[in-house]
Amino acid sequence: MFDLPDAILNDLDLRHDRLKNICRENSIDAILLTSVVNVYYTAGQIFDGFIYIPVNGEAFSFVKRPAGLKGDNVYYVRKPEQIPDILKQNGVSMPERIYIENDEISASENERLSCIFQNCEVYKGNNILRIARSIKTPYELAQHIETGKKHSETYENIKSLFTEGMTDLDLQAEIEYNMRKNGHLGLFRTFGKLEAYMGTVLSGENALEPSPYDFSVGGKGLHISHPIGANGTMLEEGKSVLVDIIGNYNGYITDMSRTFSVGKLPDEAYKMHDVSLEILDALVNIAKPGTPCSDLYNLAIEIAAKHQLSDNFMGYFQQAKFVGHSIGLQVNEAPVLTGRDNTLLQENMVIAIEPKFFVPNVGCVGVENSYIIRAGGPEKITHCNEDILNIAI
Amino acid sequence: MFDLPDAILNDLDLRHDRLKNICRENSIDAILLTSVVNVYYTAGQIFDGFIYIPVNGEAFSFVKRPAGLKGDNVYYVRKPEQIPDILKQNGVSMPERIYIENDEISASENERLSCIFQNCEVYKGNNILRIARSIKTPYELAQHIETGKKHSETYENIKSLFTEGMTDLDLQAEIEYNMRKNGHLGLFRTFGKLEAYMGTVLSGENALEPSPYDFSVGGKGLHISHPIGANGTMLEEGKSVLVDIIGNYNGYITDMSRTFSVGKLPDEAYKMHDVSLEILDALVNIAKPGTPCSDLYNLAIEIAAKHQLSDNFMGYFQQAKFVGHSIGLQVNEAPVLTGRDNTLLQENMVIAIEPKFFVPNVGCVGVENSYIIRAGGPEKITHCNEDILNIAI
Repeated sequence: MFDLPDAILNDLDLRHDRLKNICRENSIDAILLTSVVNVYYTAGQIFDGFIYIPVNGEAFSFVKRPAGLKGDNVYYVRKPEQIPDILKQNGVSMPERIYIENDEISASENERLSCIFQNCEVYKGNNILRIARSIKTPYELAQHIETGKKHSETYENIKSLFTEGMTDLDLQAEIEYNMRKNGHLGLFRTFGKLEAYMGTVLSGENALEPSPYDFSVGGKGLHISHPIGANGTMLEEGKSVLVDIIGNYNGYITDMSRTFSVGKLPDEAYKMHDVSLEILDALVNIAKPGTPCSDLYNLAIEIAAKHQLSDNFMGYFQQAKFVGHSIGLQVNEAPVLTGRDNTLLQENMVIAIEPKFFVPNVGCVGVENSYIIRAGGPEKITHCNEDILNIAI
Repeated sequence: MFDLPDAILNDLDLRHDRLKNICRENSIDAILLTSVVNVYYTAGQIFDGFIYIPVNGEAFSFVKRPAGLKGDNVYYVRKPEQIPDILKQNGVSMPERIYIENDEISASENERLSCIFQNCEVYKGNNILRIARSIKTPYELAQHIETGKKHSETYENIKSLFTEGMTDLDLQAEIEYNMRKNGHLGLFRTFGKLEAYMGTVLSGENALEPSPYDFSVGGKGLHISHPIGANGTMLEEGKSVLVDIIGNYNGYITDMSRTFSVGKLPDEAYKMHDVSLEILDALVNIAKPGTPCSDLYNLAIEIAAKHQLSDNFMGYFQQAKFVGHSIGLQVNEAPVLTGRDNTLLQENMVIAIEPKFFVPNVGCVGVENSYIIRAGGPEKITHCNEDILNIAI
């Protein structure tokens, strides 16, 4: 592996061991990865190239860019077809059954990589990566905790960033600026077709606007070419302001939402916010190792229904079919807190729970936090006042 | 199509006609698209779903999300397998040869879409999309020009955003903030494995740092999980400051770089900047319809060599093998100004030309502009002083 601090190299060994175990269970000889996110996960370093992890042996890195990387089993290549020869020269036996990514890479790249080993059966590799990545290592958990701290620092200051006459975009720009000055990397890595710029600030009717992206929140956006989030809505008396901007200070994401008000909101908005907190509490209570994700979703749906708020829950004109999701290097990792996902929660998973309610003419209310699943239950890693704060006073 | 202004619908017809012509030339019956960028290009609207464009007939949109879209030939579906039946119900004959995306979508998605039509041969569709998208329509050109104007507005103010004691990140945060307040969408759409957050500000040795991403500039970045751009370098006396932040105000990108200095730079930096301008002038002079892209690259290389600056051109420890690229909905569209790309420039292509030099201990110098290729030559759409401006006075 690359010349990296021992703490990271040891942590990478844990990740490789987990992947190797999944391979063994499925009688697979090796994994070949090339997507940015999975290269970073397995190499602790981003490069344009390939990482080959055999079940019986050390990983090899095949680098196209950047120049100058050094370490054990690091080879520079122009193309992936050079990989088998280099492995052979190192006495590595050729794989007969291999995992290659199918979701994180394009069809063209998958097709090309599927042909480089002769007489080798190719299996879809992305799901096992998502399963392995769902349980965080000690180093990864430390990154999440650090991100949560920095993320919370800006959230604690949001009230002070508001001035009268602001639009949703104005406030979002202030928050983004403060986060960037605090070291936010800006980048928002997603799985699949989600696109976003750090996150969203939503107020008024715009919060109810359906989006093509499968986030928990919508918004018309500033332009039809990127229909999500702030649309220039004035932050006016009687509107809620939901801030849902991710934290990313070291690659590992935390997700947090807080609700603000401009002046006083209608009573129903406060009631729904209280129900959001009730759901959050109830879900945190059962989110222990061994609980199926679907149980969390079903309980959330049940509590919303008990309060006759099903129509306002997780959307209005279009409702998201989940109440939370795993986070890691991407904002939407597996498993997902949805009715169809029966994955059991396990220790050291990291999840965001985000019960939200949508109020016509007002906006979105609710709270989202990120948690590490510990043996005894969730540890909250996003800390900030959870009430509806009036930013106009 | 969707309920959109007539001007956009008419423009979409031009795009569809171009795609249909390419299909006819290749005896292909239809195109099925699902990537965000190609859905927006052909539908003028972003949705999660599919657009089907038959050579003989009108396009059909199959929408999963968002709720509430209306228009001719717009159908809501849960899954792509419903598409053939809906087409049949509308009297559309089934395709025998179809283009499906291979680069913009995952292997899994490609595999699934390749099976929905029975007895249908599947061909790789991304290249024809890149060819069609390389020639911009009147509406698209207007978007580029508008973006160029807004992009230039912030660039004209960069000098005023500097204060003593700033790091590269501090200045970048100021520029990002001003652009966002001016309507920048934030999003930076790329083709392939590029990742970035609006762009980069580079100063001093950090500018020479190789990157895994195939941009013209590198930089170590703030964290190993996103190794590109600003790394916290102090903007100090004698260092250059290259600002290369994209414009995106309506989906269509402009690319522009300008060089600043903190105090006075070593003479060689001014000389290299002058050679950058000389290359820019020379390339603009030959960038007419009919000129091969490779001619532009070769001329740039030749001028750099004439000044004995080959080692500093387009990188230092790692050199980019291009001197510019097409822009559109993505920052790295086709064709590319590289030695291997013999595509002839055509009227209404939009390209960025970016001759840059890298000076040890100083940073990067040079100018980048975006141009529309007109019949008589390039029209510059990024306007801003091209000298090295001293931001410290």
